[in-house]
Amino acid sequence: MNCNVPTDICFSFSGFQARGGATDVHRDGWGIAFFEGKGARVFLDPQPSCDSPVAELVRRYPIRSLNTIAHIRKATQGATGLENTHPFMRELWGRYWIFAHNGNLTDYAPALDGSFLPVGQTDSERAFCHLLQRLRQRFPQTMPAADALLAALEEFAAETRRFGSFNFLLSNGERLFAHRATELHYLVRQAPFSVAHLKDEDLSIDFNEVTTPNDRVALIATQPLTDNECWHPLPTDRVSMFCDGTLVS
Amino acid sequence: MNCNVPTDICFSFSGFQARGGATDVHRDGWGIAFFEGKGARVFLDPQPSCDSPVAELVRRYPIRSLNTIAHIRKATQGATGLENTHPFMRELWGRYWIFAHNGNLTDYAPALDGSFLPVGQTDSERAFCHLLQRLRQRFPQTMPAADALLAALEEFAAETRRFGSFNFLLSNGERLFAHRATELHYLVRQAPFSVAHLKDEDLSIDFNEVTTPNDRVALIATQPLTDNECWHPLPTDRVSMFCDGTLVS
Repeated sequence: MNCNVPTDICFSFSGFQARGGATDVHRDGWGIAFFEGKGARVFLDPQPSCDSPVAELVRRYPIRSLNTIAHIRKATQGATGLENTHPFMRELWGRYWIFAHNGNLTDYAPALDGSFLPVGQTDSERAFCHLLQRLRQRFPQTMPAADALLAALEEFAAETRRFGSFNFLLSNGERLFAHRATELHYLVRQAPFSVAHLKDEDLSIDFNEVTTPNDRVALIATQPLTDNECWHPLPTDRVSMFCDGTLVS
Repeated sequence: MNCNVPTDICFSFSGFQARGGATDVHRDGWGIAFFEGKGARVFLDPQPSCDSPVAELVRRYPIRSLNTIAHIRKATQGATGLENTHPFMRELWGRYWIFAHNGNLTDYAPALDGSFLPVGQTDSERAFCHLLQRLRQRFPQTMPAADALLAALEEFAAETRRFGSFNFLLSNGERLFAHRATELHYLVRQAPFSVAHLKDEDLSIDFNEVTTPNDRVALIATQPLTDNECWHPLPTDRVSMFCDGTLVS
């Protein structure tokens, strides 16, 4: 979720939580990261989200954030365990970066120089470490402008998707980057707001009651989270960049 | 807390939570990190722990860990905000490192080469980044043996405490390192177990009922958390190393 004003994810998280073991097969842990300013809070649980006390907290405690990334895991590589639970976090250029991957990279062993090393055994964390290493090599001192960053991400994604399915979400708290390999949809909620109804649970919310006219929220998800709003597929094999609740590139 | 079997911190956390704004003045946020294997979960909240819904979760949800570090903050440098909330986490040598500081370093501007940069404005995160940079310079490829690591920490602590008060806790999930500058106490709980009573709240626990005879737990805290157990001061200006619930050096 990428927004122009700090927004809580409680409604969307209700449907998302159900997919972690109740309405869907992603039972091998879950996690969610909220940026608040430059800070980030990451809640991880190797339990299925449908049974997790931490997920209950997240569903009930409205944490307002401009950029939120959540992930439910179906293990492909690496055991079920905390160190293999997405999203992953590292610091680069004095900012936190949050990364979540949906897919599977096979025979994937990028040359890592030690600047960022995986703690767990997933292909996903390996790809994240390789990405950050590449970004620091290219831009050693400070974060580049958004367009240069996007170009570097496009190049990295093109190289990495040769190893398999590589849908990912990445954020530094300012912008949210989404790479679609196989499946990724998005929706922008803005005025005039309407009533949204979850796909995974019989729960509705009237956004007129909880928003102001200038609020704008982009939601990005593998599969649409609601069944009465207009979700769009993101372009395949491209990195899409979201800022202030809009798809900007 | 450093233990020889995964142990939850629910009892001790009850007293600790009260110090964050109720029985003590540390109102400017709090955090706790639990290692589970190589993975780590960090719960942070810029609210006082005595009012925090996240603290309520931690108090009630028994997360079992060999190494747990908790911190309640009274801001000296850096605003109250998530990015300035301890403990801090970074990755080095493919392991997570967790750091919390109690004290204040003044005119402290170590030369950082960009390998680890602070996200917030605290002297504490600056010191942590400098420490990790120093460790990677000294041991570029892999984590050294515990004694070599301890010697490097002693050297770093001696250099850094010239800038002010520098009590800190550091863990990589295997061992817990504690540097006492001004105040730091510890206690080892092992068989025969007895009834412990919190200082900050009228709450007791009979550890005979919740332990097995081989369990051993070291608790390290600025001030003793219980009023009927034998807490010892740690040696001043030294880094103490705990492993498997014992002070080993």
